[in-house]
Amino acid sequence: MNEECGVFGVWGDPNAVDITHLGLHTLQHRGQEGAGIVGRTPAGLRRHYGFGLVSQVFAQPADLIALRGPAALGHVRYATAGGAILENIQPLLFRFSDGAVALAHNGNLTNALSLRASLEQNGAIFQSTSDTEVLMHLLRRSPAKTFKGQLIDALNQVHGGFAFALLTENGLYAACDPNGFRPLVVGQLPSGGYVICSETAALNVVGAEFIKDVQPGELITVTNAGMTAEQYTTHTQLAVCSMEYIYFARPDSEIHGVNVHQARVAMGKRLAQEQPAAGDIVVGVPNSGLSAAIGYAQESGIPYEMGLIKSQYVARTFIQPTQALRERSVRLKLSALKAVVNGKRVVLIDDSIVRGTTAKQIVQLLKDAGAKSVHLRIASPPLRFPCFYGIDIQSTKELLAANYSVAAMRQLLGVESLGFLSVQGLEDSVNLQTTAPNRGLCVAYFTGKYPTPLDDYAANLKEELSKLTLNVEEVAAR
Amino acid sequence: MNEECGVFGVWGDPNAVDITHLGLHTLQHRGQEGAGIVGRTPAGLRRHYGFGLVSQVFAQPADLIALRGPAALGHVRYATAGGAILENIQPLLFRFSDGAVALAHNGNLTNALSLRASLEQNGAIFQSTSDTEVLMHLLRRSPAKTFKGQLIDALNQVHGGFAFALLTENGLYAACDPNGFRPLVVGQLPSGGYVICSETAALNVVGAEFIKDVQPGELITVTNAGMTAEQYTTHTQLAVCSMEYIYFARPDSEIHGVNVHQARVAMGKRLAQEQPAAGDIVVGVPNSGLSAAIGYAQESGIPYEMGLIKSQYVARTFIQPTQALRERSVRLKLSALKAVVNGKRVVLIDDSIVRGTTAKQIVQLLKDAGAKSVHLRIASPPLRFPCFYGIDIQSTKELLAANYSVAAMRQLLGVESLGFLSVQGLEDSVNLQTTAPNRGLCVAYFTGKYPTPLDDYAANLKEELSKLTLNVEEVAAR
Amino acid sequence: MNEECGVFGVWGDPNAVDITHLGLHTLQHRGQEGAGIVGRTPAGLRRHYGFGLVSQVFAQPADLIALRGPAALGHVRYATAGGAILENIQPLLFRFSDGAVALAHNGNLTNALSLRASLEQNGAIFQSTSDTEVLMHLLRRSPAKTFKGQLIDALNQVHGGFAFALLTENGLYAACDPNGFRPLVVGQLPSGGYVICSETAALNVVGAEFIKDVQPGELITVTNAGMTAEQYTTHTQLAVCSMEYIYFARPDSEIHGVNVHQARVAMGKRLAQEQPAAGDIVVGVPNSGLSAAIGYAQESGIPYEMGLIKSQYVARTFIQPTQALRERSVRLKLSALKAVVNGKRVVLIDDSIVRGTTAKQIVQLLKDAGAKSVHLRIASPPLRFPCFYGIDIQSTKELLAANYSVAAMRQLLGVESLGFLSVQGLEDSVNLQTTAPNRGLCVAYFTGKYPTPLDDYAANLKEELSKLTLNVEEVAAR
Amino acid sequence: MNEECGVFGVWGDPNAVDITHLGLHTLQHRGQEGAGIVGRTPAGLRRHYGFGLVSQVFAQPADLIALRGPAALGHVRYATAGGAILENIQPLLFRFSDGAVALAHNGNLTNALSLRASLEQNGAIFQSTSDTEVLMHLLRRSPAKTFKGQLIDALNQVHGGFAFALLTENGLYAACDPNGFRPLVVGQLPSGGYVICSETAALNVVGAEFIKDVQPGELITVTNAGMTAEQYTTHTQLAVCSMEYIYFARPDSEIHGVNVHQARVAMGKRLAQEQPAAGDIVVGVPNSGLSAAIGYAQESGIPYEMGLIKSQYVARTFIQPTQALRERSVRLKLSALKAVVNGKRVVLIDDSIVRGTTAKQIVQLLKDAGAKSVHLRIASPPLRFPCFYGIDIQSTKELLAANYSVAAMRQLLGVESLGFLSVQGLEDSVNLQTTAPNRGLCVAYFTGKYPTPLDDYAANLKEELSKLTLNVEEVAAR
Repeated sequence: MNEECGVFGVWGDPNAVDITHLGLHTLQHRGQEGAGIVGRTPAGLRRHYGFGLVSQVFAQPADLIALRGPAALGHVRYATAGGAILENIQPLLFRFSDGAVALAHNGNLTNALSLRASLEQNGAIFQSTSDTEVLMHLLRRSPAKTFKGQLIDALNQVHGGFAFALLTENGLYAACDPNGFRPLVVGQLPSGGYVICSETAALNVVGAEFIKDVQPGELITVTNAGMTAEQYTTHTQLAVCSMEYIYFARPDSEIHGVNVHQARVAMGKRLAQEQPAAGDIVVGVPNSGLSAAIGYAQESGIPYEMGLIKSQYVARTFIQPTQALRERSVRLKLSALKAVVNGKRVVLIDDSIVRGTTAKQIVQLLKDAGAKSVHLRIASPPLRFPCFYGIDIQSTKELLAANYSVAAMRQLLGVESLGFLSVQGLEDSVNLQTTAPNRGLCVAYFTGKYPTPLDDYAANLKEELSKLTLNVEEVAAR
Repeated sequence: MNEECGVFGVWGDPNAVDITHLGLHTLQHRGQEGAGIVGRTPAGLRRHYGFGLVSQVFAQPADLIALRGPAALGHVRYATAGGAILENIQPLLFRFSDGAVALAHNGNLTNALSLRASLEQNGAIFQSTSDTEVLMHLLRRSPAKTFKGQLIDALNQVHGGFAFALLTENGLYAACDPNGFRPLVVGQLPSGGYVICSETAALNVVGAEFIKDVQPGELITVTNAGMTAEQYTTHTQLAVCSMEYIYFARPDSEIHGVNVHQARVAMGKRLAQEQPAAGDIVVGVPNSGLSAAIGYAQESGIPYEMGLIKSQYVARTFIQPTQALRERSVRLKLSALKAVVNGKRVVLIDDSIVRGTTAKQIVQLLKDAGAKSVHLRIASPPLRFPCFYGIDIQSTKELLAANYSVAAMRQLLGVESLGFLSVQGLEDSVNLQTTAPNRGLCVAYFTGKYPTPLDDYAANLKEELSKLTLNVEEVAAR
Repeated sequence: MNEECGVFGVWGDPNAVDITHLGLHTLQHRGQEGAGIVGRTPAGLRRHYGFGLVSQVFAQPADLIALRGPAALGHVRYATAGGAILENIQPLLFRFSDGAVALAHNGNLTNALSLRASLEQNGAIFQSTSDTEVLMHLLRRSPAKTFKGQLIDALNQVHGGFAFALLTENGLYAACDPNGFRPLVVGQLPSGGYVICSETAALNVVGAEFIKDVQPGELITVTNAGMTAEQYTTHTQLAVCSMEYIYFARPDSEIHGVNVHQARVAMGKRLAQEQPAAGDIVVGVPNSGLSAAIGYAQESGIPYEMGLIKSQYVARTFIQPTQALRERSVRLKLSALKAVVNGKRVVLIDDSIVRGTTAKQIVQLLKDAGAKSVHLRIASPPLRFPCFYGIDIQSTKELLAANYSVAAMRQLLGVESLGFLSVQGLEDSVNLQTTAPNRGLCVAYFTGKYPTPLDDYAANLKEELSKLTLNVEEVAAR
Repeated sequence: MNEECGVFGVWGDPNAVDITHLGLHTLQHRGQEGAGIVGRTPAGLRRHYGFGLVSQVFAQPADLIALRGPAALGHVRYATAGGAILENIQPLLFRFSDGAVALAHNGNLTNALSLRASLEQNGAIFQSTSDTEVLMHLLRRSPAKTFKGQLIDALNQVHGGFAFALLTENGLYAACDPNGFRPLVVGQLPSGGYVICSETAALNVVGAEFIKDVQPGELITVTNAGMTAEQYTTHTQLAVCSMEYIYFARPDSEIHGVNVHQARVAMGKRLAQEQPAAGDIVVGVPNSGLSAAIGYAQESGIPYEMGLIKSQYVARTFIQPTQALRERSVRLKLSALKAVVNGKRVVLIDDSIVRGTTAKQIVQLLKDAGAKSVHLRIASPPLRFPCFYGIDIQSTKELLAANYSVAAMRQLLGVESLGFLSVQGLEDSVNLQTTAPNRGLCVAYFTGKYPTPLDDYAANLKEELSKLTLNVEEVAAR
């Protein structure tokens, strides 16, 4: 699986590698398992990569210096469950007689397994467990005469949600899936060089001017001759991943023209209308719940307060000798501000509920700190279906809302009341100003209505849902 | 110098070392240069220590396991300018024929230099450059017959701001200076064991119940016979460091009965009264300016907004190849939310101004993001005098407000207006409910009126101020 | 290039991984750039690998524990010139829908480039720069129905010197090239499990009993059903790499029945006959020259002495501030024993001369220590031609003996006399008891007569030799 | 305890730090627990130190660069049993108002405990557990007016075996104990700068010319005015530690005019005379037994052979899962050359026997490799008494020869015969050309006759010997 990653590439700037390094730091929230940069050095493409944060992988100036040249491609990878293997850390670098190709990917292919099986039938070998290698096999097996032709061939064979970026000696290439599930933007540096990356926040930090969102089915080519955009397919239909707006992207990014923070504030306001609460203070769960909390407070008139504090430091705790200490160590990340919440009816705002374990702990924190009651308001609809386009929600089994009614969840979480934003409320809040279905948003995790066929996952999902003894409509209506 | 540190000790709990480890994580904001723990193992006191964050120093479970026993003392040390040396990382551990003594310190002694000179005259040897070794020399040279007697002797010889904690095979000892400049609290664990630490937030995290603030001139003794408190001197006068409330302590800590966050909210409210501003939105500088911003917004009625975003990840940047990239790398820590501030009159709230360099950068960030105007409001009075009691403000030279009038600062910082909280406003906001001068607060950094003689620093300060060609009153009135 | 490596595999022992770890330590002399082990865990094949010595790559017990299971395959890789890349560290691990395959290689393929070009034409992708990936592509593209059938297909397509080992969930496979250039042996553990590795010394250390040398063109298969040996080709001709005997293999290894140390002693004795010297003492260059020195001393009657001392510790030196210190830092590795060599006529024995730089430094060391004269005797013929079968001698340009006559070399090295072993003397000393040409040895580096076509290297070698303005016979006769 | 260490100091060379770094590498055999260098930088004395080999402690060029200046003092520390603490790693660095002092020590003080007790009575504090801090306390408490006067005072109060080196801003000082137990030499660099270090081998490597051995009771002073030597006491009596010749010093060092390797060859020759053996080959235990083996072979006429091979690489093994593997892992360090020893009567030469465990393993190795018989000859007398002057033999309990007769040892070790060098033979072999008792050697470990009073150790030794139910003469005669 290649999910929730960040990509950042530069072409045509003498400081391409250092800019990419800054850019990856900016995209660090999109992936913390590993990072890598491929630089176009005078001696060809060179790679440095490893497990951990960007600051851990690039621990020495020499790590960057060895990569320096006028182009670079970087990647941060999300921590996935199961055994992490180095071979999955991207960009992958392929070495051919006629030059090397670096490849970075954010997303998930729905037909990766069947493509892989078919490729293996024809002698393909694989060193990673990621989808990304599949694209390179398809590209190199294409009968097309040019690299771009081969790439277009390959792109037309993969399904799902993806944002690919490729670097060769001759150019930087990037493409979005036909639904534009995953964000990808193009910017220009003061030097005239180009940047292609996952979020506009990274453009801002490196000082690049925003040029455009990469459109569904679009292929961007940057060479020394400049930047061109073309459609590799016209069978497109905008369906931006709504989770990017809800919690994943940075608040200072704009996706298809809509600022993430403002979308969240709007969700909070709408939530206040849809799910009012009799509270004394509004408290957001830091950090992704804060924007919606501001909106909720503004709309409801209930004062916004800082009732929870998130530690600025990463604590490294080991297996605690007692259960009591195990519970304590959770509080290193988040603590309740007793002086604020004691004796208060707290309207607690979070962006979403996945398994519910964190929410339960936070509610307990607030109650331990003296909160009279906790009214939990979630600034998104109940998450009931898996995502197959690149967000790490893979099974209905683990989704609280797929298994319990709202009333049951309220009890499980120990709150006095519980309310979710409606799907319509979500769509209105993001407001992509389009006539596309669902206003151009993918809301499949809430509705079970996927904008594309699910290919390799279809049978599996059907079986999972069957275990819930509910049909899609029933689960969605829970 | 031993400044802005955190101490955390446990006596009488089988998990003393693991509790201390959690506690140090909670106090990490008080010092990031180094950390250490001394544990009372079956084989005597053992120490693990090093440079870096708690999570870096204690990187392996084995680092803790080797220290385990029923008592422990830990310390986090602030990053001071100049060459960091391992010998300064605390707790120091002294090894004697009749047992070992661990010593941890938060604060600064005003007569350390003269004590040191006098001790050296009498054959004392020093391995660190910190004040802390001085106390151990005094203790061991005392003619008193008991350890506690020697400790009381030593405490009566040192001046300044200090919170000392000592661990022996027989007990845990802690003492505050006669003015109570530095915070120190006692708590009790569910096991019956005792905790002594710098802030109540650490008590909360480890599940200890608050018992008391250590009072000025008080010595706490914890042995297997229980906890006792006594005055080692009665010449005391409460003067809690106001900077603890303004920016240094955690918002979820209480110092002498006053919650830090609420004090900051109160400062923000008072600031709104004293220094109103014609703005569209109130934006706090994360994280220490956020509490005051909430107060300012509530009092002024101007909406609180999230106009600045602080990165959750530590970026490791190297020397950038160009000036442009050097400026960019600042933005990794903090970025402006263009969608929020664009076209707005921003009331920017920060806790204090030291050198002014950070404030200038933030103002520039906001202007670059389209802010129509920036009205900077500081939730504390202008910092004009050094601190000699343990806050790292050592020279008037580096203090912007000691060298420029408010009008000049406004211009330097590039803001449309600039306003500070008054000293009276600060005192009223903290409101320690005492009849002590300055309401029991030390506000010497604002007024130049120090609550104690300055000993070794007196001449130096006089000379510094003379260079400003102003007398104390004139500087304070700037 | 995949050169001068060591492989070690185990099948059918519960401690396979720990045994492989010991085995790799024993083969450390065959490669220090990197190491890796693939273990057959209950969850499938798992790999741990990295740059550095075995002790650096496997720094924690957990590194081994994660791999444990009843079979394992390990590899140590030689430090090659140029950019070291992690993708080249072996065993490579390929992940297929129907199971994973680990692959380790010692040797060099002469037709790797043309195979690679042809594979790329047909869509193959490459992540490493090593020959090894080629074999896996050939294997997976074979139309054969079984894994073994595919492997045999692949083995019949690669040329050169190679010892391959492969591990799957079902078995451990190993094969030697048709000339048996590279050593590979099979042994059996007390548990009944099998070991396949590069040298018998590794069998001894892990307590395995020697079963057989893998023969030219032979494929060994070990499964739960036991061990079988078969010829994958019958076009074979024994030509063991003579450099294994001369300097590369451990003295306590036996290759095709001949002990390496004893072969070196025999070379030393024959050298004494062929190239007598009027010396007072015989001094061997530690460590690979010591065996021949013992033989030379025994045959000549000149006393064997310890005139050079090799440091037991690896020194890490940085760029020295002066030329004098740069020269000094060489002496950290090797120093002359002045008390032994002062005033003496030294017969210095080394195993071979490649570039001559080390020999020159050693001669200087001896002269500085007071040696009256140095008579250099080399226990192998002059190295004049590159090796294409897995020894890291790639260019005639760098070979002293390819560019200078013996007389010229004597002057360059600053010795009073210089003598080499004859090719015939080398063959007689190793004495493989066979009727194969050159007594079953490959002596191409001395004669330029390669036992196989050179494929991709033929043109290049021809051009190199043409630059020497000599034909093969002339160079060989220099 | 401060034992078996190495010191290396430079004064008056612009590359003092880099030279010291090379020097410490050369002295690495004298201590592997930790290392450190203090450099006299423009900003005063600066220190870098840590656990591990020199190459591990100085892992980055920056570690040296930060210390650079015209003088330096370095130290390598032996791995002692029990908890290693960082505070013991030397040189210690003391920081005083009037300048810093670095202190490095090789040796052991017999009156350290009583001095420490008396100093503690007078208020002295200790951070290490080593003897070294004692000297600094004595120095600083001396009433003398000059640093050198204070040092002489201090030196006259410490007893035992010691080589101290001190570095201040003004000079480099070094002194030997009144018996010259521990080696210390002075040399001069081409630059005119001076080196003081533990062994002449280090002088050779850095290119310094030998000037003199530091004499018993002598103090060397090096300042910008040049080098002077003076006696700080005249109550001296040469008693060089014989273990330096037997196994500890490098073979290429000269101690008081006698080359170590040649002394060992002489011991081997004498051993052949005193303890002849009916063997086919002579095999030395690498590396410290090789010199004596060469001597034994030359004198006996039995051929010298390489029957044991020592690995050049440090293996890092973990706890093995089985006993069989635990035994195997020993063989990573040393292996027997079966082709050499099989069927042979082996005369095995080692330098000494301490606990006997290693000897037993080696004998087993040889037998497993087919040796018909093993005749063990030890090139030193039986070790029966502890050393209190700096060699790590602290208890008679652990000494095989203190607890068993030669006949009993023969059986325990499983050898066909066992013979030791006589004390007279040892003295004759070293042959210091002096009329001092025992020819100027300390042979107390063999005879129990210590050249000085044992101070703090006297009672303890008496008790230990009493447990053996033997008097000194009886034990010595075992």
